[in-house]
This record gives sequence, structure tokens and C-alpha cells, in this order.
Amino acid sequence: MTIPPEPRPAWTHGPVGVVGLGLIGGSLGLDLQARGAEVRALVHRAATAERARARALATRVATEPSVLEGCELVVLALPLDRLLVPSPELVAALPAAAVLTDVGSVKVPLLPAWSEALGRIGRPEQARRFVPSHPMAGTAEAGVEAGVANLFVGRPWVVTPEASTDPAALALVADLAASLGARWLCCGAAAHDQAVALISHLPVLVSAALLQAADRGGGRNGPLLAELVRALASSGFADTTRVGGGNPELGTLMARCNREALLEALGTYRHCLEVLEHEVRAEAWGPLQEALAACRDLRPQFL
Amino acid sequence: MTIPPEPRPAWTHGPVGVVGLGLIGGSLGLDLQARGAEVRALVHRAATAERARARALATRVATEPSVLEGCELVVLALPLDRLLVPSPELVAALPAAAVLTDVGSVKVPLLPAWSEALGRIGRPEQARRFVPSHPMAGTAEAGVEAGVANLFVGRPWVVTPEASTDPAALALVADLAASLGARWLCCGAAAHDQAVALISHLPVLVSAALLQAADRGGGRNGPLLAELVRALASSGFADTTRVGGGNPELGTLMARCNREALLEALGTYRHCLEVLEHEVRAEAWGPLQEALAACRDLRPQFL
Repeated sequence: MTIPPEPRPAWTHGPVGVVGLGLIGGSLGLDLQARGAEVRALVHRAATAERARARALATRVATEPSVLEGCELVVLALPLDRLLVPSPELVAALPAAAVLTDVGSVKVPLLPAWSEALGRIGRPEQARRFVPSHPMAGTAEAGVEAGVANLFVGRPWVVTPEASTDPAALALVADLAASLGARWLCCGAAAHDQAVALISHLPVLVSAALLQAADRGGGRNGPLLAELVRALASSGFADTTRVGGGNPELGTLMARCNREALLEALGTYRHCLEVLEHEVRAEAWGPLQEALAACRDLRPQFL
Repeated sequence: MTIPPEPRPAWTHGPVGVVGLGLIGGSLGLDLQARGAEVRALVHRAATAERARARALATRVATEPSVLEGCELVVLALPLDRLLVPSPELVAALPAAAVLTDVGSVKVPLLPAWSEALGRIGRPEQARRFVPSHPMAGTAEAGVEAGVANLFVGRPWVVTPEASTDPAALALVADLAASLGARWLCCGAAAHDQAVALISHLPVLVSAALLQAADRGGGRNGPLLAELVRALASSGFADTTRVGGGNPELGTLMARCNREALLEALGTYRHCLEVLEHEVRAEAWGPLQEALAACRDLRPQFL
């Protein structure tokens, strides 16, 4: 992990392109304009463009890829599946000299996909100017109405450059993150994907299974118990199941795109839970209490 | 589940005894006095009695069991282990005519333990006037400083009477719960214990294992990843791990006192998580998304 440079708005030398104006793209558009940049945004649908203009999410909003012409930096703020399978039209529309970055929450498959896509149109060297990013900021909202100012302040902005990544491109994205108030974190793509599997994708399944267990465990013992579990569930249950009750498309996409790291995390989790279950079964109350005490001491390290 | 009667302060005919002035007992003492009752409290230690008097948690506070003489209703607001293994001194000090109730979060072993304890001193019939209660109200606090007014308003007050329970005793406790503003819920002891295993005791272990997995999964891949999982964990991880990072003594006590229902809940949970893991492994993205969509629809039923 490196220290961010002093904020210099190097990215304001020319217009900044933003592809997609959902939560991340729209928030970027608002922040970049507030910091003096001209923002040129490409969106898919005319209705989205209209709402984006009404919300002033960018200086120019178009459904025509030519809007990106002249941009020295283009942020690809697309859903993960569209980042990992780049559309040929989009790739062809990106200015050949531009620094590229993205916002995807899974990093290992990203650069290989883009290297191939850029190679296919005769611009393999541009992959060196693609800085894989994961700005870890979010709300429960999505879509063109979701973008808000200052979304990135104090949040991690993870980058996973390769050895071949152009240092000037990396510095430009570091400038961008610093200007938005984000915390710059640099690590390998594999380490990033393992970390988000453990702290973001695994909790979704752990939490979803708890909802299923409460429902099925209740239902199996008749309607009275099914009613009772619903009546008695309190704030602890609500907290533990929040991420498991979230957006199913997003949860599935994460699992699909980070499958191997998630399976490894699930294996680790399964082992931890089996040990706890064994302690309950064996009435090993001393070891169980020690394990729970260790968890109590562990949690503040993650907050 | 039955409808509570109209609040009638039947329990104010005589002084009310409260044994223990922690979060639940202290809050009860404040509320009962506010509603016009004389509250006589028995605590274990002289220092606790002093603080309880300073906080005016009861009308009279003593470390001598004789303080309970003359009480027509005694609420046993003790930790679960002391409720399930009643001390002979306490049992002997309870007025023979009093209605008894408790606040324990596990109910199956309670009445058998008290029936035996009361039988041993020649008062087997008093077990019919013991109304097992579980007022489900809590904060993160504990001890003599924890009691607050109006803790029970809108919270479930679960009772698990037996067929032999005296209806007049049950009505007296229903009056008490209604006067405190609690929601009255009546069910069998086994159903109660299965329900709290699913929505309260299981989440502790599910959540603790997630903390362990994030720690071990991170640590196994070197110090950088261990640092990264801590840096990237956000509000979703914090929520999902909250109950797993809670009081280890309490977590262990719940597991110990509700072991069988917890093991059944763990079995149900393990099966649910295995199916989700299988879907990830088999790349069954359609079924995974359907399962997560069902979870999203399920969660509001528990809130």
C-alpha cells in the first residue's frame, strides 16, 4: 500500500469521460464537475440520458459513443458483467490515447478481458494504461437517481495494477482518487479478490442461509413456530441478515465473477462453523467461550 | 397466542418482589414504581444494593432474603444459569403464596428445575403458580447501571405456561406485561426454545464463524491480505458480525442451556449453506439467484 500523492487535478487537463451514470458513475460526475472538470458521459438509453441531464450528472450526456472523443481519462462505471465482457462498440469508441479505469468489485478477470479486447482492435499497448480500480463506496440505491456528491470521501479506492501498468496512468488515477477524498490502496488483483470474497461476498451467502434456516427450521415444526420466529426476531437477527436480504442479481453476479475466491472463503467458513458446532455438541464450553472471546476481540480490527 | 387483557394493576395489591437488579430487574423496578407499586428487591452484593438504592431502582433493596416477605408476586430477574439451578436459600425465601415468574431466555429446563426445587422444600403446588416468562428486551448494557425506564414498551413478553399452570397466576403476569407496555405472546416452552435458537442463538455462531473466517482466510495468505481484509471491511461486514462479536459468557450460556435446539438449528443452517455452496460450485446461477430473491422477499417478514 502506498501513500497518495498531494492532490493535483492532473485529470482536469482535458475532459473526463464517464461510461455509465449509476450510483458510482453519477456520483463521480457530480464530484468531478464540482472540482472544475468537464465531464462527458456515455449512457445506454435515451431515457437515462434525459434524467442524467436533468440531474446535471455530467457536462454532456449522450447515447452516442463519439461523446468520449478527446477524453484523456475514461472511467468505466458499468455493472461488473459488462466490465468483464467489454462490448466491441465501447472498446472501439474509447480514445486510443486515453487512460482507462473501471469501478468493478472483482479484479482478476478484468485486465485479461480488456487486454484481449484492446488487442483485437490493434491497440494492445493501451492495456498498459488501464488501471483496474475498485472504489468501495455504496448505498442501497442504484440507477441514474442514485448518484450523490462526496460519495467517495474517506472510502477505500483500491487499485490492482500489473507490473506492466504505465506509472503515469497510475499517477493520474491516484490524483483522481485523492481529489475525490478517497483512501488509496494498492494491491494485487488476486489479493483484492480474496479479500472481498471474505468480507463482502461470503457474508451475503452466510446471511442468506440464516434467513433460509429461520424460515425452514420454523416451518418444519408447524405454523405456530413459523409465526413465532417471525414475531421474536429482533435487531440482532435483522443485522445479521441484512446483506443476505439484498439485491439477488448483484449477489449472484459477485458469486459468478469471483467464484474461486468465494469457494475458498466458503471452505474456510465451513470449517470454522464446524469447529464451533463440534464444541456445542461435545459440551466443550470452555473452548467455546474462548473462541467467542477471541471473536469479540477480533471484531474491532475490522471496523 | 392470546390477546392481552385490559391493563388492570392486579399486581399492585401487594408489594412486588424483584430478585436481581441488572438490566431487566432494574428496568422492571423503575417501571413498577412509576406505576404505583411498592418494589422490594433482593440483590447478592452489598455494593450492588448501594448503587441500586442510589439509582432508586426499588422501594426497598436488601441483601437479606427476608425482604421478599409479603410479596404476592416475585420476578426472578437472574442470569440464566442461576435460574436453571435455583439456589436453595432463594427458593426457601420466596413467600409460599406468591406467584413466581422469571426472565430467562431458555424455557424447557426451567419448570422442571423449579418443580424439583419447590418439591424439595415441601411446596410442590407452588410450581403451578410459576409462570415462565421471557421478556425480549435488551440493550448492550448489563449490571446495576443498565436498568432504564420503559424498556419493555412494544417488546415481546413471551410466556410458556404448562397445562397445570394456575390461570389466576397467568392472568397476574399478563397484567404485569400489559402494564409495562409489552406485547404478550403465549406458546409452548419447546416452541419458544426452538424459535430463539433459530433467531437468536444460531446467529451468534453464524456471525462468530464469519469473523474467524475473515481472520483466518486473510492470515493464511500472508500479512498483506490480513491487512487488506481489515482495511476493506465495510458496513455489511460490520452488521453481519455484530452479534458474533458480543458477550462471550452470554453466548456460551445460551448454547449450554439451549444445546439441543441450537444443534438442530445448526443442522438446518449447515444444509442451507451447503445448497448455496453447491450452486456456486456447479455454476447454477439461475437457482442461486432464485434463492437470493426468495431471501430478499423473506427478510421483511422477520422485521
